[in-house]
Amino acid sequence: MTEGKVFLVGAGPGDPGLITVRGKQLIDSADAVVYDALANSALLPPGARTTGRPELYYVGKRAGPKDSVTQEEINALLVKLAREGKRVVRLKGGDPFMFGRGSEEAQAMNDASIPFEVVPGITAGIAAPAYAGIPVTHRALATSVTFVTASEDPAKPSTQTNWTALAKAGGTIVLYMGVKTLGSIAETLIKAGMPPDIPAATIQWGTHPKQRTVVATLETLAI
Amino acid sequence: MTEGKVFLVGAGPGDPGLITVRGKQLIDSADAVVYDALANSALLPPGARTTGRPELYYVGKRAGPKDSVTQEEINALLVKLAREGKRVVRLKGGDPFMFGRGSEEAQAMNDASIPFEVVPGITAGIAAPAYAGIPVTHRALATSVTFVTASEDPAKPSTQTNWTALAKAGGTIVLYMGVKTLGSIAETLIKAGMPPDIPAATIQWGTHPKQRTVVATLETLAI
Repeated sequence: MTEGKVFLVGAGPGDPGLITVRGKQLIDSADAVVYDALANSALLPPGARTTGRPELYYVGKRAGPKDSVTQEEINALLVKLAREGKRVVRLKGGDPFMFGRGSEEAQAMNDASIPFEVVPGITAGIAAPAYAGIPVTHRALATSVTFVTASEDPAKPSTQTNWTALAKAGGTIVLYMGVKTLGSIAETLIKAGMPPDIPAATIQWGTHPKQRTVVATLETLAI
Repeated sequence: MTEGKVFLVGAGPGDPGLITVRGKQLIDSADAVVYDALANSALLPPGARTTGRPELYYVGKRAGPKDSVTQEEINALLVKLAREGKRVVRLKGGDPFMFGRGSEEAQAMNDASIPFEVVPGITAGIAAPAYAGIPVTHRALATSVTFVTASEDPAKPSTQTNWTALAKAGGTIVLYMGVKTLGSIAETLIKAGMPPDIPAATIQWGTHPKQRTVVATLETLAI
């Protein structure tokens, strides 16, 4: 039996043309693909659903609370498939190491002594602004860009992110998953000295045909 | 005559498998490709040098001081080719909007009323650590990652980057082009309160077969 292997592949931000050439090749030659809601299903081989080659496993966390697959179950599935000698693609939205829990999956493969490889993907924080015509860096305007998960509310005392320091860092800030906490984060950044009239944008469905961009200022964006 | 168009395409970090599917398709159907030293020449269509299709223009800035092509000359070349009705791919290392002066090229196309499109690329700051097995974010360890150009020495009073604030932000910091200024930046970060024993790595030739990674601490990395 050949030894199995797991490829943690970034699917990119939504536009199926934004997966890497290597990522696409790995999907097309895989024995099994484990994917979730954030990976565009247009990336799956067209015949797979009828032929079962590659085997498809949907592990999306958006299927409703009862159908939810836990991270531990996903890790266990990857280990099981690899131990059956399969070439397994774990297809993840964006980049595996940018807020995607890919580092936990890599750790789980390492712990189980499963050979694995990471294939980076285009992260939404770069691509969605690009599709909206917004460069995240510019020689004269922004010498740094910070990507930060907004799922931690700055109002909570337990936050790991020092929002006050970020406000002073002087570069672009890109929030991931910021719909619920945007107002609270904007308020914190302004209190820390970020100009209320600094340009700001929200982008929904980045790089999809239905991408929607709202441009405002830091002060008015969440209103 | 058909209207020309310029595609600002990210070539990815070095490994030719890391260009996007769309970027590769655009190169293969282009009338002209304008590329520089940071884009892997393995991405160029194999027959182009002999057939002249697509036309190839090397505008690398590493060709020695006398041969150097200025940004203004690159912008002018893109405008000229597009005005000849050509589909022009401007192939840039990494991502066009991450420290690549792509925003200036986009601005120049806009000023000249040339239709253009940005095709994101995998940036080295994500891919090189991934190839070294280093996740830039992790739910329990790093809720943010900052990409910052290290070509500005913090010892200079003119720096736009607030290194002291960055040191306190609490996430991963990825320096681009940091060979010369690493020592000075590490010292500044430690003075600002970053633990001297925090893990740190330098990566050279990221994602190329000759990638070289040195892992140390913030205090010892530059030694």
